[in-house]
Amino acid sequence: MANFDLMRELSAETPSKIVMLVADGLGGLPGPEGLSELEAARIPNLDQLASESICGVIQHVLPGITPGSGPGHLALFGYDPLVFDIGRGVLEALGIGFDLQPGDLAARGNFCTVDEAGRITDRRAGRIATDLNVELCKVLREIKLPGVEAFVEPVQDYRFVLVLRGPELSEGLTETDPQWEGLTPLLVQARRPEAKKAAALANEFVAKAEEALKGKQPANMVLLRGFSNRPSLPSMHEVYKLRAAGIAIYPMYRGLAQLTGMSVFPGGKDFMEEIQVAKERWGDFDFFYIHYKYADSAGEDGNFKGKVEALERLDAGIPAIRALGPDVLMVTGDHSTPSVLKAHSWHPVPFVLHTPWRYPDDVRAFSERDCRDGDLGRFAATDVMPLAMAHAMKLAKYGA
Amino acid sequence: MANFDLMRELSAETPSKIVMLVADGLGGLPGPEGLSELEAARIPNLDQLASESICGVIQHVLPGITPGSGPGHLALFGYDPLVFDIGRGVLEALGIGFDLQPGDLAARGNFCTVDEAGRITDRRAGRIATDLNVELCKVLREIKLPGVEAFVEPVQDYRFVLVLRGPELSEGLTETDPQWEGLTPLLVQARRPEAKKAAALANEFVAKAEEALKGKQPANMVLLRGFSNRPSLPSMHEVYKLRAAGIAIYPMYRGLAQLTGMSVFPGGKDFMEEIQVAKERWGDFDFFYIHYKYADSAGEDGNFKGKVEALERLDAGIPAIRALGPDVLMVTGDHSTPSVLKAHSWHPVPFVLHTPWRYPDDVRAFSERDCRDGDLGRFAATDVMPLAMAHAMKLAKYGA
Repeated sequence: MANFDLMRELSAETPSKIVMLVADGLGGLPGPEGLSELEAARIPNLDQLASESICGVIQHVLPGITPGSGPGHLALFGYDPLVFDIGRGVLEALGIGFDLQPGDLAARGNFCTVDEAGRITDRRAGRIATDLNVELCKVLREIKLPGVEAFVEPVQDYRFVLVLRGPELSEGLTETDPQWEGLTPLLVQARRPEAKKAAALANEFVAKAEEALKGKQPANMVLLRGFSNRPSLPSMHEVYKLRAAGIAIYPMYRGLAQLTGMSVFPGGKDFMEEIQVAKERWGDFDFFYIHYKYADSAGEDGNFKGKVEALERLDAGIPAIRALGPDVLMVTGDHSTPSVLKAHSWHPVPFVLHTPWRYPDDVRAFSERDCRDGDLGRFAATDVMPLAMAHAMKLAKYGA
Repeated sequence: MANFDLMRELSAETPSKIVMLVADGLGGLPGPEGLSELEAARIPNLDQLASESICGVIQHVLPGITPGSGPGHLALFGYDPLVFDIGRGVLEALGIGFDLQPGDLAARGNFCTVDEAGRITDRRAGRIATDLNVELCKVLREIKLPGVEAFVEPVQDYRFVLVLRGPELSEGLTETDPQWEGLTPLLVQARRPEAKKAAALANEFVAKAEEALKGKQPANMVLLRGFSNRPSLPSMHEVYKLRAAGIAIYPMYRGLAQLTGMSVFPGGKDFMEEIQVAKERWGDFDFFYIHYKYADSAGEDGNFKGKVEALERLDAGIPAIRALGPDVLMVTGDHSTPSVLKAHSWHPVPFVLHTPWRYPDDVRAFSERDCRDGDLGRFAATDVMPLAMAHAMKLAKYGA
């Protein structure tokens, strides 16, 4: 938390502008020809940027720890992900663009199938279609709970989000999913005294849902997991005195940005439209977070070639961002997603920060290996914002 | 402690296997020809391993701090040595293979010589032979203390171990050795209220020992130091969900492994027999700690050539370990023991971790200098286990 306290103390509002371009799942591993996705991609603009910038590789949590998107982004924005926790229910709600309010309690829901004795026979209700999910959520919306509002929103297939809104709804609840078929759903229990009210309401919701879904096989019951409150984070403005904007095509990333108090903007339908949004709002903000999703999606699919192409499309947008004339331009990722692993990984992520205040070095390409040998070496993602603030001349000196 | 909490939360039991080979006192310094022991040794198997792995150098405590064997090993196993303390009495007891139980209070003992006025004339009793020590320990074993058992075990020359076993025997005691000859032994004092009972018993033991040893010059008195309780550490199974085995020829290293809940196995008479033990128990465990002593012994003796040869014998065992097919193989040390210093030192220790999930690099040799330029650079020994767990695919991601 030392970083945070120093930023509060030393930051100043200035006209300089910072752009943080986050390529989701940026880092990779060598593929069949011994090159990583970044090394295999033709990315002349990023290579040029790296050769004119300071480079390093960043670690979002700790060595060996694979970050989810929540901790990965929080760390980039300077919020220690071991201190600030984003629950799974909250992330699911952010993912569908649900407008979470302070105090809201969110949970991930599954439709499931139970037999006459109430035992789970399919934890995913035969993976029902999203259309049916939408219809069933309408049924669940009829449920009334005393003193709170209950929002039920479909996600996809058999998954939905439950949000309870009202006074004193604390997280710290156990899940109803027993994880194994053949068992009956569990009662929600409070793991701390202040969560007792929320536990009772959650159990009442489940009982009423069971009643409302009776006979609607295969989706005749619900399971609830990941109960969590919308976290209350100090805002980017409070910490950095930044007027910050978040631009993302996918709702989850706008949701994460919103948690830090950023003004958020849908990114349109592709990367060039996201850049266009930044251009249109250039005068209104001094920090722009732009999210680029497609490197991660291809990596998760194990599609090496697809990730290479996604990185090349990322590269194609760089000149338009540079043309905006940011004082500090950073390109990095929220975690690695190597195609060979088809999943997020713990490998450090390339980082580049364009600034005139640097020593020229030998980095000529934007890749895992080249960046590691850059001026910044391997460092913690929570140091990214202090470095950006410094290079944007937004920090006073510490001590006299 | 963040590492530990994350390991508890994220670790999963899987069939993958991890081998950690600890070469005691591995790191060195340049000798007469400007090469370190590792650089002077012919170690083709370790060089090959390094060129196929990720490398770095590790620091067990903090920069400039020379680790003892206890802190060095604890750090490798992921236990922060600044949090988990192994007292000197406990280490001495582990060194002779004494089966310490939870709650036991151990102390290092010296036979010494006192004059008629009770003043110490030789703190080491003329370095009496071990045979005499064994006889005198039999005399001391006759001492009865109220409500506790007292174990007296010879170590070597003038050194013995005292272990008190019984309820409420707390550490936090001062030593009886005044450190200077010409002074009388000090009374044991409690440094905290809960240690008063132990202090009284220790003083009673010393008084009865003085009585029992009367006339047995030069060993007519005892000095007691390093009173400490057997530490209670969370087990490797609790933290990492690992079924862990420790294989070591010397009892102290089995004792250290046992403190972390490992199942321990005597390593036979040489390194190849230790590897044979791992082979025989390969199906029963998913983590194998193998201890190799001889690099340290030669280093302590200031025997550069001997240490080179010890490293070459270490190298000769590598193919047999690789033939076991571990998913992750690590080779490192618990501290440096440069022959030129004839002692443990603070220098970071080479580390290699064999994994497919890496970027090939330029490291082609296993040495202090080569490993330093590897992918992992210089890092904390407490990060070793999280990295091993990640590369063995035993960790879930952190946050959604």
